Amino acid sequence: MSANIKIQPLNADSFAPFGDIIALKSAADKIINEGMCARHHNLAQLNFADGQAGISLFDATPRTLPYALTMMERHPLGSQAFLPLHEHSFLVIVAADDNGKPAPPKAFRTAPHSGINFHRNIWHGVLTPLAAPGIFAVVDRIGAGANLEEYWFDNEYTITE
Amino acid sequence: MSANIKIQPLNADSFAPFGDIIALKSAADKIINEGMCARHHNLAQLNFADGQAGISLFDATPRTLPYALTMMERHPLGSQAFLPLHEHSFLVIVAADDNGKPAPPKAFRTAPHSGINFHRNIWHGVLTPLAAPGIFAVVDRIGAGANLEEYWFDNEYTITE
Repeated sequence: MSANIKIQPLNADSFAPFGDIIALKSAADKIINEGMCARHHNLAQLNFADGQAGISLFDATPRTLPYALTMMERHPLGSQAFLPLHEHSFLVIVAADDNGKPAPPKAFRTAPHSGINFHRNIWHGVLTPLAAPGIFAVVDRIGAGANLEEYWFDNEYTITE
Repeated sequence: MSANIKIQPLNADSFAPFGDIIALKSAADKIINEGMCARHHNLAQLNFADGQAGISLFDATPRTLPYALTMMERHPLGSQAFLPLHEHSFLVIVAADDNGKPAPPKAFRTAPHSGINFHRNIWHGVLTPLAAPGIFAVVDRIGAGANLEEYWFDNEYTITE
């Protein structure tokens, strides 16, 4: 048995329980560099139990739709931000927690030139680019200790347009 | 009077005194997500005197070459990373310190799908994309206090191909 989940455009209201959308705001916070640059300030809640923030790169294989969601994961010790080093939308899958396992998931497609930040310990799908190359900068916790919990579904979900 | 500076391809050896190149390495540190993603781990030296790391977006006007370099700046309280949310190369200008002012600058062009991190208190030019839109994620210090020093040249430099 497979339940279908329809992809929604990403918007701040529906994504707020899960994380931050890292995108230009309607108005910049500050104009710098003699008018040549707009700063949209501090757009993500970085939260680490210990260790410190670091920047890594992820190089992920692009997926096609419909996408079979078999597993979700969460990171109890820190938030995790994904910043595409390209102009393509990508797929973002999140779920509330239901007594230690993911509640029915939601799927979003990002807008170009924007990233997202998963809040600490939020269930999410693995990185799922929809175009090549799937290269992203990732801002997450650099530190020792187990920081990955996985949940495998008995019945997979099918993510569709 | 104007001195010319020729743009070099960015490479780790020549950039090392100034910062980090945030790019895929020849080999990943870890393969995750059942073989579907390569993690290139912890590529930038984030260093903040106080406050904490945050993610902002900069939306900068693209420049054309030759580019007139009239000013450089540095941030005494923290490193600053630039991650292009697009696939275009951008111009990176840095200088060693010479008794409180920039030594003759060096100019580099990044490779696509990569970013850079300026180490704390390194002289650098302002963000100079070479294509539109000039949208970058910036990982820098979020905190109070003056964190900007500017130096205006008596004679501008001309940055050329």
